[in-house]
This record gives sequence, C-alpha cells and structure tokens, in this order.
Amino acid sequence: MTNTLSDPAENLSLLIRCPSVTPAEGGALSALASMLEPLGFKVTRAVEREAGTPDIENLYARLGTSGPHLMFAGHTDVVPVGDEKAWTHPPFAAEIADGMMYGRGAVDMKGGVACFVAALARVIAKDGAPKGSVSFLITGDEEGPAVNGTVKLLERMAESGERWDACLVGEPTNPDVLGDMIKIGRRGSVSGYLTVHGVQGHAAYQHLADNPVRGILQLTQALMDPPFDAGTDAFPPTNLEVTSIDVGNTATNVIPARASAIFNIRFNDTWTADSVKAEILRRLNKAAAEGALREGRPPVRYDITWSERPSHVFLTRNEPLIASLSAAVERVTGRKPALSTTGGTSDARFIKDYCPVVEFGLVGQTMHMVDECVALADLETLTQIYETFIREWFAAHAAA
Amino acid sequence: MTNTLSDPAENLSLLIRCPSVTPAEGGALSALASMLEPLGFKVTRAVEREAGTPDIENLYARLGTSGPHLMFAGHTDVVPVGDEKAWTHPPFAAEIADGMMYGRGAVDMKGGVACFVAALARVIAKDGAPKGSVSFLITGDEEGPAVNGTVKLLERMAESGERWDACLVGEPTNPDVLGDMIKIGRRGSVSGYLTVHGVQGHAAYQHLADNPVRGILQLTQALMDPPFDAGTDAFPPTNLEVTSIDVGNTATNVIPARASAIFNIRFNDTWTADSVKAEILRRLNKAAAEGALREGRPPVRYDITWSERPSHVFLTRNEPLIASLSAAVERVTGRKPALSTTGGTSDARFIKDYCPVVEFGLVGQTMHMVDECVALADLETLTQIYETFIREWFAAHAAA
Repeated sequence: MTNTLSDPAENLSLLIRCPSVTPAEGGALSALASMLEPLGFKVTRAVEREAGTPDIENLYARLGTSGPHLMFAGHTDVVPVGDEKAWTHPPFAAEIADGMMYGRGAVDMKGGVACFVAALARVIAKDGAPKGSVSFLITGDEEGPAVNGTVKLLERMAESGERWDACLVGEPTNPDVLGDMIKIGRRGSVSGYLTVHGVQGHAAYQHLADNPVRGILQLTQALMDPPFDAGTDAFPPTNLEVTSIDVGNTATNVIPARASAIFNIRFNDTWTADSVKAEILRRLNKAAAEGALREGRPPVRYDITWSERPSHVFLTRNEPLIASLSAAVERVTGRKPALSTTGGTSDARFIKDYCPVVEFGLVGQTMHMVDECVALADLETLTQIYETFIREWFAAHAAA
Repeated sequence: MTNTLSDPAENLSLLIRCPSVTPAEGGALSALASMLEPLGFKVTRAVEREAGTPDIENLYARLGTSGPHLMFAGHTDVVPVGDEKAWTHPPFAAEIADGMMYGRGAVDMKGGVACFVAALARVIAKDGAPKGSVSFLITGDEEGPAVNGTVKLLERMAESGERWDACLVGEPTNPDVLGDMIKIGRRGSVSGYLTVHGVQGHAAYQHLADNPVRGILQLTQALMDPPFDAGTDAFPPTNLEVTSIDVGNTATNVIPARASAIFNIRFNDTWTADSVKAEILRRLNKAAAEGALREGRPPVRYDITWSERPSHVFLTRNEPLIASLSAAVERVTGRKPALSTTGGTSDARFIKDYCPVVEFGLVGQTMHMVDECVALADLETLTQIYETFIREWFAAHAAA
C-alpha cells in the first residue's frame, strides 16, 4: 500500500494531466489502472464498438470475489476545454492556487474517481480489504453519445457472471456545498422531432397557401400548456421545453411549405416513456383539430419522430444504500443531504437495471465551464464521506 | 410601317428567344428597340448601377413631343427557368403547340410588351401617330432586387424633363380569363425581423434558463391575432404572415439563447407604413409584458429590424384612365373587369409617385412556372384591348 493513493489531490492531479476529451482515452484509464492494481484490483479493459460512433475504451476492476458487492461507477472522459485561452490555468495541468485545483474534469468527475480510490486505500490500510467485493465501472463515453460506455460495459460484465448489490455513482450532485444533495432517482427524458406540413405560396396570396408556421405555433403551444403534472412525492414536475423551431425561409414574400420543432420532455414517475408519448400525441391531435375548428382551416398536418433511446424514469428505494450514504454525509459534514431526483440524466439510468443505485459527488458549479476547479478541502471531505460510506455499507450487509 | 409589328405573336417570339433572366439583358431590350424605332420612337438606353447589386440595362422610348402623354410600363427580364428538363417546350424557343406559345416570360410579361407594340402599330397604321405622346418605360430589374430598374429610370427621365399624364402597366392581372381584372391599386408591404433573447441552459435545469422559444411564440401569436382590419371599400383585409421562425439548435438537451422570426404584412389604406409599424410595436410590447404577468417570468426581451424599403399602399382614383381601360376591356371581351387591389406589389408602386397608374395584362396562371405559356387567342384579344384603350384614352383627353 503506498501513501500517495490515500491522497485524493495526488490521484486527481494524475488523472487531470491525461487529456481524455471524449472519445479519447488520453491515458486516464491507464493511470487509474495503475492506482487500482497496487490495491489488489483485477483490472479488465474493454473497447466497445458500434457503427457510426467512435470506439471507446472502458475499464472494469474488481477487488474480492465474494459478496456483498459494491460498485463505484463513473467516467474519466471530459468535455472539450472550449476557448483554452480563456482559462487562467491550463486545463490539463492540475495547477493548484489558493486552495483550488484547476483542470478539466476536476469536478466532473475525475475528482469523484480520485476520492473513491483514496477512500478505499484508507479503508484497506486501516481495516484490510472489505468483507465482500468492491468494483470500479469506469467509462470513457459519458460525455459523448453514451453508446459504447456504461450500457455495453454492464452487459459485458453481467454476461461474464458479475452481479452487484448496490452502486454509488460519483457524479457531482451538490449544487452549492458538499453535503447538499444525494440523488436517488432521475426523471426520464424523451425528445421529439415535429414537422408541420403546409402549402407553399406567395405572401400576398395567403388564401392560396397554408402557412405551416400557424400550425407549428398551435402544436408547440399545446405541448407547453397546461403543465403535465404538479410533481410527485419524490420528483419535481414534468417539464417540456421546445428547444428549437426551424423554417429556414429567407424570402419574405414566400409562405413556406414546412415548419419543424424539436422538444425535450423530462418526466417524473407519473409517467412512463410510452405514456408520456401517448399524452403528447393526444395533445398534438387535439390542437391540430382545434385550430381547424376555430379558424375554418383544414386540420394541421404533422408528423413526429422520437429520439431513439428514451431515458426511463427511476427511483431507488433501497434503504440500506440510501441510509449508509446519508449517514456518512451527515457524520462527515454535519449536513443532512436532500434526497433529490432533480437534474438531467446520468449513467445511473443504465445501472438501475442491475442493482440499486445512488449518486453523490463533488460540487457541480464549475462543471463544463472554463476554469473548472475543485477545492482541495472538498477532495478531502468527499474522501472521508466515501470512506465512511464504504465502512457503513459493508457493516450493514455484515449485520444483515 | 411593317405588317409584322402588328402581330403580337411574332413580336413575342422575338422577345422570348432572348434569354433575359434577371439581371441579364439577353438581347431583349435591343429586340424591343428594333421594334420601336421603325414606329418612330426615340429610344434611350440607360444602365443603372448601385453598390452591392448587379448593373441593369433599362429602356425608355418616346413617340411624340407634346401632351397628353401616356406611358406603357413593364419589364423584359424574366425569372429563372428552374428545372429546364421539366419543360415540355424549351423555355427560350417560343414554340407553338395547340394554339399556345411556350416560353419563359410568355405571360410575365414579354407578352404584354408584345401586345402593346402590336396595338400601337395598328393605331399608327390606321390613324397615324396619336395626338400627344406615347412612351415605353421598360426595366430589366423587375424580377430582381428592383433597385436599378423602374425607380431609377423614372428619376432619370423625370430629371431630364419627362412628365406623364397616365400609365398602364402590362403585368398579368387576370386570374382566370382575359377581362377578369384591372388593378387600380396595391396594398403596402413591410417585412420585419424579430429576435427574442433568452438565457441558454440545460434542458433539465429549465429554472436556470429562459427559453426564448416561449417568447417568440407569444410575440408571433400577437402579430397574427386579432386581424388588423376587416378590409376597406377598395382593399382586402390587411394580412400578416410569419414567414420563418428559426432557432438552429440541434442539441435537444440545451435550451437556446435566441429565437428569430421573420414576418411580412400586406396592409391596406387603413394604414401607412409608419402606422402599421407602430401597431406592430404596440402588439409586441403588450405581448412581451403580458407573458411576464401570466407566468411570473421576466418580460420578453426582443429587438426588431425592418426591411429597408417598405412598399407604400396606393389607390388610383383617375376616372378617365380607369374608364378608358374598363371600356376597352368590356368592348373587346364582353366582360366587365373587376377593379381590384389584391395581390402582391408591382412597379406601379413607384410609378404612382409620377402619374396615375393602372395595370392590365394577360392571364397569370402559368407565370413563374415550368411551361409558362400564353394562348395565341389571348395575345390577339389583349392587342385589341390595348388598341381600343389607346384610342379611348387619347379621345378622352382630346375632348377634355
């Protein structure tokens, strides 16, 4: 056991220095493997491929052979740096200034990986290996299409016989302060591509044309109002955003033939992906017919296609998992974390098909931004939380 | 006097064979000059230029030196042929089949020019030159930006001392049958370019963003409803069409920062270009504030720019001009033409600043289409109408 592995800042600096912008591995998984092997992990590297998407390197590592089995999941790929000249510290240098470490991935989420390695190193140094198994499921495709990452790696490892009892995802979950928020579920997400068909014509002879802009306004209005629901015990209200409307007509004297809209709905456990699509179609058909009634026009002609892979809503109800994590957060920070289901999707939506999953990591404020950075103090605190959680979780399972 | 000039089909075939797609002169103005000079016209050719637009050749020709002075106005440029392979007769060949002459410009509006030449040749052959003056004001920029055409040619000729008592524009004005419709005015036209500013963000954190699609829907809805007016004695109702909405956001998980719309309003004599713009701004400001009240959001932030050159609404009230033309149409066709102000703008909007102007020409059904064509019978009928009109108009002025 080396001392350095129990220092999350040193672990993180090694990871930040690997320029692992999706889909590049950038040395990050190799760096992680070099940390895990000395701790006794058996490391598996797997390249996943699919036509039309970049090949992706992923890593799975397991310590122990018996149950109970705790998985830590995350990613070492990072989003692009954007305007590198705008960074006050180079994005792949891991420079420290005023108690902050700077670099792309500092909070999203090389920091979480670095802390979990450090936490485990501390547990092993003090207590020896946990009674059971710990594994790392780390993808290089969380920030990309997410096709050749967690989904396939889970399938591959499950096929080879791996089974898990619980999973902690180390994504940044805290809005402001470490200890704010644990995520215990996620809303589902579906995107739709709507096209309204009209009849092209001259703007001065509008009676001979049928302006599809009118129809797209009617239909998108019906998508936005009224609200889909008022939220549930565990979830915020379902929300639909029209993210684009496009006609592409530059001739002001021409009524266009087609208008398109794109929308995205984040739905709670009132709905399934199928039921929310059915509700959307009901609204569209009603609005298409109503516009015709009101204005003496033909019904709005439209077609719709859906995003290929909807994200399904889920809520984790595993008490030992949530209780172990909450207790660890409260013991280390003195803060009682909110159990939240807000925000976007994460790879937890894939993991939930294999075992109960919760998410807790750093403070997300600088993620994806220029000068992404993490407080060294937060790295230490998160390491202590993870360390406490590992002990709590295995203790709870030993007692059961 | 040659016999051929009194045959509109022969005149038209010479013009169609000139490929004068805007901005190309294509030999069409030279062909016209070759017809007018033998009839005694003094021909002026003028090239008009402006930075950022193509140079345009135009033609002005006058027969006679005294008043009263009747102008015939039109253009010899034509719109592109589109998919030439889709034409059953070549677009610049003036082929005749089943009593129809085919070619780009057959009705819009080389046909009108050809008929007026023929009509005048017949008047001169029978009665001698009219007691007064007749002029042709023919542009090569009616189908293009209309910057270096009628506007500048009118200015140039007025500066050189030309004055006119009335003008007939030979654009195709008849929807179905020759004799249907004279145009005695035109609605005005203004286009606006609207941009709504929001706050970009993640679709799953909509409370941190401000989706400009919501604002553009509110504002464009307010532009379309309620109607601006119910029409006037001489004009159809004012009509506004939103001709494009554009966001250009392909990322379904991103709320965009901006949304744009383009609209065009055709307004009647209830309005001026300035008053209709003021009404539009009133609607936009009301809708921008209302959305905020209803939904507890900030007022919609928007900006707007206007098309550089609005078309002003006008109505010709010159009784002798309208009566001479109506009588000629009725005498030749047996049909009483509607006096209309419908449809798009034409170069009449520029001429109305110099003298009373009316419009009458062929049947417009095939204009701008593949296989544009004109019935030989219509060419003969229109020539007779023009011939009768010329006699009537000069007779009315001689009597006055």
